[in-house]
Amino acid sequence: MKKVAIIMGSDSDLPIVEKAAQTLENFGVEYEMHVYSAHRTPCEATDFAIHAEENGFGVIIAAAGMAAHLAGVIAANTVLPVIGIPCKSASLDGMDALLSVVQMPSGVPVATVAINGGTNAAILAVQMLSISDEGLKNKLKEQRAKDREKVLEKDKKISENNK
Amino acid sequence: MKKVAIIMGSDSDLPIVEKAAQTLENFGVEYEMHVYSAHRTPCEATDFAIHAEENGFGVIIAAAGMAAHLAGVIAANTVLPVIGIPCKSASLDGMDALLSVVQMPSGVPVATVAINGGTNAAILAVQMLSISDEGLKNKLKEQRAKDREKVLEKDKKISENNK
Amino acid sequence: MKKVAIIMGSDSDLPIVEKAAQTLENFGVEYEMHVYSAHRTPCEATDFAIHAEENGFGVIIAAAGMAAHLAGVIAANTVLPVIGIPCKSASLDGMDALLSVVQMPSGVPVATVAINGGTNAAILAVQMLSISDEGLKNKLKEQRAKDREKVLEKDKKISENNK
Amino acid sequence: MKKVAIIMGSDSDLPIVEKAAQTLENFGVEYEMHVYSAHRTPCEATDFAIHAEENGFGVIIAAAGMAAHLAGVIAANTVLPVIGIPCKSASLDGMDALLSVVQMPSGVPVATVAINGGTNAAILAVQMLSISDEGLKNKLKEQRAKDREKVLEKDKKISENNK
Amino acid sequence: MKKVAIIMGSDSDLPIVEKAAQTLENFGVEYEMHVYSAHRTPCEATDFAIHAEENGFGVIIAAAGMAAHLAGVIAANTVLPVIGIPCKSASLDGMDALLSVVQMPSGVPVATVAINGGTNAAILAVQMLSISDEGLKNKLKEQRAKDREKVLEKDKKISENNK
Amino acid sequence: MKKVAIIMGSDSDLPIVEKAAQTLENFGVEYEMHVYSAHRTPCEATDFAIHAEENGFGVIIAAAGMAAHLAGVIAANTVLPVIGIPCKSASLDGMDALLSVVQMPSGVPVATVAINGGTNAAILAVQMLSISDEGLKNKLKEQRAKDREKVLEKDKKISENNK
Amino acid sequence: MKKVAIIMGSDSDLPIVEKAAQTLENFGVEYEMHVYSAHRTPCEATDFAIHAEENGFGVIIAAAGMAAHLAGVIAANTVLPVIGIPCKSASLDGMDALLSVVQMPSGVPVATVAINGGTNAAILAVQMLSISDEGLKNKLKEQRAKDREKVLEKDKKISENNK
Amino acid sequence: MKKVAIIMGSDSDLPIVEKAAQTLENFGVEYEMHVYSAHRTPCEATDFAIHAEENGFGVIIAAAGMAAHLAGVIAANTVLPVIGIPCKSASLDGMDALLSVVQMPSGVPVATVAINGGTNAAILAVQMLSISDEGLKNKLKEQRAKDREKVLEKDKKISENNK
Repeated sequence: MKKVAIIMGSDSDLPIVEKAAQTLENFGVEYEMHVYSAHRTPCEATDFAIHAEENGFGVIIAAAGMAAHLAGVIAANTVLPVIGIPCKSASLDGMDALLSVVQMPSGVPVATVAINGGTNAAILAVQMLSISDEGLKNKLKEQRAKDREKVLEKDKKISENNK
Repeated sequence: MKKVAIIMGSDSDLPIVEKAAQTLENFGVEYEMHVYSAHRTPCEATDFAIHAEENGFGVIIAAAGMAAHLAGVIAANTVLPVIGIPCKSASLDGMDALLSVVQMPSGVPVATVAINGGTNAAILAVQMLSISDEGLKNKLKEQRAKDREKVLEKDKKISENNK
Repeated sequence: MKKVAIIMGSDSDLPIVEKAAQTLENFGVEYEMHVYSAHRTPCEATDFAIHAEENGFGVIIAAAGMAAHLAGVIAANTVLPVIGIPCKSASLDGMDALLSVVQMPSGVPVATVAINGGTNAAILAVQMLSISDEGLKNKLKEQRAKDREKVLEKDKKISENNK
Repeated sequence: MKKVAIIMGSDSDLPIVEKAAQTLENFGVEYEMHVYSAHRTPCEATDFAIHAEENGFGVIIAAAGMAAHLAGVIAANTVLPVIGIPCKSASLDGMDALLSVVQMPSGVPVATVAINGGTNAAILAVQMLSISDEGLKNKLKEQRAKDREKVLEKDKKISENNK
Repeated sequence: MKKVAIIMGSDSDLPIVEKAAQTLENFGVEYEMHVYSAHRTPCEATDFAIHAEENGFGVIIAAAGMAAHLAGVIAANTVLPVIGIPCKSASLDGMDALLSVVQMPSGVPVATVAINGGTNAAILAVQMLSISDEGLKNKLKEQRAKDREKVLEKDKKISENNK
Repeated sequence: MKKVAIIMGSDSDLPIVEKAAQTLENFGVEYEMHVYSAHRTPCEATDFAIHAEENGFGVIIAAAGMAAHLAGVIAANTVLPVIGIPCKSASLDGMDALLSVVQMPSGVPVATVAINGGTNAAILAVQMLSISDEGLKNKLKEQRAKDREKVLEKDKKISENNK
Repeated sequence: MKKVAIIMGSDSDLPIVEKAAQTLENFGVEYEMHVYSAHRTPCEATDFAIHAEENGFGVIIAAAGMAAHLAGVIAANTVLPVIGIPCKSASLDGMDALLSVVQMPSGVPVATVAINGGTNAAILAVQMLSISDEGLKNKLKEQRAKDREKVLEKDKKISENNK
Repeated sequence: MKKVAIIMGSDSDLPIVEKAAQTLENFGVEYEMHVYSAHRTPCEATDFAIHAEENGFGVIIAAAGMAAHLAGVIAANTVLPVIGIPCKSASLDGMDALLSVVQMPSGVPVATVAINGGTNAAILAVQMLSISDEGLKNKLKEQRAKDREKVLEKDKKISENNK
C-alpha cells in the first residue's frame, strides 16, 4: 500500500496535522510527516513533490495558513492527488487560507477540506487509497458504523433525559 | 477501471459539469451523469450513493449551488471519495455554495474544488483513480506537459510582442 | 396539540437547543429532543423526518453548525415546516452555518432564525402551532407583554440613573 | 382557512413577491398583497401588523432589500408567524438584506428564507397553515411529487444523452 | 440648546452608550438615556421618536446589535437627524449590525458611525448641534486640540525612546 | 442659512453626487460642488476643509470609492459635521468604500450613509441644518408626507390588481 | 537603471498588466513581460525568480487571479522586492486573489496593490527604483503634478457648471 | 544609506511596529519611529510626508487600524514608496484596515503587507533599499538562509519524531 505524506507549512500547524496523523494510524496507513514552507523552503517543498511518487507516496496532505500556497505549490509539481487543509490563523478566521487553498485554477486541483479539518484530510486520503483496496474500504465502513453508534448513544442519552 | 459518477443538483448546473464530463472523456475514463437533487429527490440521491460502489463507481463528483447539500448527502451514504463543485448562483457570488460544500464536519469529508471548477473536479477524480493505475498517471503527466506548453507558447508570443 | 421535535446535529449544539426546549416548556408545548447527524446518521435523520407527521409532530427544529445540512435533509423528507438554527463553530463566526441553512433552493424552504437563536426557534414553532390554537396565541401575547415590561423596567432604572 | 399577507417594502420587490403570490394561488390559498415601507409608511406597516390577526390572516410574508427592517417591524407588532424574504439590491449582493432579516434578537423571530426566495416564502406559509389542514398537507405532498418527477425526467434526459 | 437622546435597544449596549453619555457631559450637552427595543417595545420607540422634537431634542442617538432596526425605526418617525451605533454581538463581529444600520433606503437616512463607536456618536451629535452654536464649535476645536496634544506627547515619548 | 459642500473624490462619482445636489435644490438649500481627491489633491481637499466654516458652509458631504479616505481627510480638518457616501467601484461591491468611510477612530466621526446613497446624504445634511431652522424642518415633513403618499398610491394600485 | 519584470499567471490577465507596461513606458523604465503560471509552469516561474537579479531586474510585478500564488512563489525565490496585483476573476469579486496575495507569512513579503491595480503596480515599481535615482523621482513628481492638474480641471468644470 | 520611517496611527499599534523596528535593527538599517494620526494630527502626518525625502528617508512604513487612512495620507504627500500595515482592531478582524490600506486609487499606490505584518513591512523596506545596495541584498540572502535552516531543523525534529 502506498504511503501518505503530511506536509505542514509551519510547526504552528502541528496540532491540526497531528489529528490527521492519528487518524491514519487508526487506519493502519503508513505516513511521513514534514515541515516544508512554500515560501521559506520552496526548493525542499518542490523537491518533495517531484519525488513523492517514486518515493512510494500515493496521496499528499498539505496544511497551511494565511496566504496558504503550500498545497498549490505541491500540486503543481506532482500528479498525485493533493489534499489541502486551510489553517485558521490570527486574523480573518481562516477565510484567507480557505480561499488560497480551494480557488485553484483549471488544470491543477487541490482537494480542499474544512478549515482546520485535520481528521477529514486523513479520511479523504484513506478513501482515495481505498479505491483499489477492499481492506481499507472495509475499515472506512467500520469507522462510519462506529461514528453512527456514537451519535445514536448520545441520542439515546439526550432523548431519554428530556422525556 | 472504475467509473466516475457526475451528479448535478439541478440541470442549471449542466454547463459546469459538462466541463467535467469532457475532461473525463479526454482521459478515457468512463462516467455516468445524473440529475439528483438533495432536496427534491433525496431518496434517489441517497440510493445512488449507497449503491455506487457495487455499481462499479470509484469516485463521485457532485455539483450544486446555494445551500449546496448534494455532495454532503452523497458522502454521508458511501465511503467512496466524493468531490464537491460549489456552483455560483444568482446571489452571494458562490460563497454560499463554497461554505456549504467545504465545511463538512469531522468523519465525512468532501474533496472541494474551486467555485464552478468543473474541469478540476474531473482531473482530481482522475488523480484519485490513477493512484493504482500507471496508465492514467502517464496521461495526467501528458496533460500537464500540454498545459505547460500552452503557457510557454503564450509567453513566447507576449514576451516577444513587448520587446 | 401537535408536538415539536428538536433535532441537533451534534451534542455540542446542546447549550443552544436547550434554550429552545426551555422555551417550549414555558409555553406548555410538548417536545422530543434528538441527536441525529445528517452526515453520520443520514438514515435515522431521514427516517425521523419521514415519520414525523404520523408520529404527532407539527413542527421540526433542526440545529447544526459548519456545512449545516441537517435542516435541509429533514425538510427534504417531510412537508412539515422545518425551522433551522445555524450554530456558530470554531471558525467563520457562524457564517458557514447561516448560508448552509438559509440558502435553500426553490421548493424546499427552511425557516431560518439567527445564528445560535435557540429561543427564537422555539417561539417561531409556537407561533406556527398557534395559527389554529387561540390558547397558545394568548400565551404568546403574554410573553410579549412580559418582554415589554422587562425593557420598560430597565428603561426606568437607566433613565433615572442618568438624570 | 386563514389568509396570507404579502407585504413588500417597495414596488421594486414586485417580481420577487409575485412568485410568492403565484405559488399561493397554485395551492388555493387566499392572500392580499400590499406595499408598506417600514421607513416611509411606518404607521401603515405597524397598523397592518396589529390588525392582521383580527383581519383573518394566519401568516405574513414580508419582502425588503438593503437594511431590510420590514419583516422585523411587522413581527414586533403581531404574534402571527412572519416570513422574511431578503431582497438583493444594487450592492452587497443581498448580504445586507439577509443579515437585517435573519439576525433578529431573542423574543421576536422572523422565519427567513433564501435571498429573493419568493416561491419558498409561499411554500413555507402553506406549510405553516397545513399544520392543522390535512387538505393543504396533501397538496404540499403533490407538489413535492411533481417537483420530484421533474428532476427525474431531467435525469432521464441527461443521463441518456451522455451514454 | 436642544437636548440629545441616547436610545439603546438593550441594556447590554450600556457600556457603549455610556461612552456617548460621558462625551456629551464633557461638552456640557444635556441628554436623556433610554432603553427602547424596536422589537420588544415598538410603540415606546415609535412614540419617543414622534414626540422627540416637541420634547426639546435636537438629535437622537440609537445603538443596537444584530438585526439593528432601532435607528431605522426611530428615523422613520421623526425628521430629526438620527445617529446609529452598530453594536457588536456574539457572532459575525458586528457586520450584521453595521449593514442593518447603514444601508437605509432613499428618503430616511441614518448617520452611521463605526461599530461600537459610542464616543464618535456623541461627537457627531455635538457637531450637528454646533452648526448654529459657536460656543459648542469652540469646544469641539478645544477637544481636537487636546486630542492632537495627546498624540504629539505620545510621539515625543516613542520617538525619543527609539533614538 | 449655511451652505452645504458636496465634494467628490473623482468625477466618476458624479452620477451619485448629482442626486445629492438635486435633493438639496428641492429643499432650497444652497450648495457648492467640487472634485477634490484625498490622494491626488491632498492640499486642496485639506484647504477646503480648513476654510469651510469661514466660507459659510454648515455641512460637508464627501463621496469616494475604493479606499475612500476623502471624508476622513476632510473630517480631520474641520469640526463641521461631515457626511460620507461610500461609492461602489469595479470590485468588492462597495464593501471597501463602506469600511473605509464608516470605521473612523474615536474623535473624528464621519456620518456614513448607504453605499451610493446620494439622496440620503443630502436629506441628512438638510436634517442637520434644520435643527435650528423650522422652515427646513417643515420641508422635511412635507417630503416625508409625499414619500408616504407615493407608497400608498403604489399600495392601492398593487393591492387592487391582486384582488 | 535596473529593469522591471511583469509576470502574469495567465494571458487573461493581459488587460491589467498592459496598464502596468504602459505606465513603465511613460516613465522610460525598461521592462520585460512574461506569462508564467505558478501551477502550470512552476519551474519556469521559479527559474525566472532565481535569475532575475543577475539578469538585471530590480523589481518584479506579478499578477494573478483566484488562488493567486504567483507573487508568493516568485517572492520565495528572490530577495528582490515583488509587487503583487490581485486580479478579479469570475467569482468572489477578487477577494480570493487579494487574500492569496497579501496575507504572506513572516519572512517573505509581497507588496500588494489594489485589485486589478495595474497602473499602481507600475508606479510603485518606479518609486522603488527611484530611491536611488533622482531623475525618476522627478518624473514621479511631474506625474503627480499632472494628476493634480487633471483633478483641478475637472473641479473647475464641475464647480462652475453647478453655480 | 537612506533611513526608514515607521509611523503608527496610534500607540496601540506599538506591538506591531516594534517588530518592524527590531527587524530593521537586525539589518542595520537606520530608522525613526513616530506616532502621527491621519485624523487627529493631519498636519503633522502631512508635514512629515512632505519633508521625508529631504530628511533622508528612503521608505516610509505606516501602520493603522479601522478606517486606516494613514498610509494613504502619507503616500499622497510624497513620492517615496509607502508600505502600509493594516492593523487588526476590536471588530471585523482586520478586514476594515486591509481594504482601507490596499484599495488605493490609480496614481498613489500603497505597498500593502498582511494584517499585523510588522516584520514583513520591514523586510519589504529593506528589499526596496537593497535595489541599489549589494550589502543589504546579501544580508537579505543570509536572513533567507537562516529562515530556511530553521524550517529544516523543525522538519528534522518532527519527521524523526513521527517515524
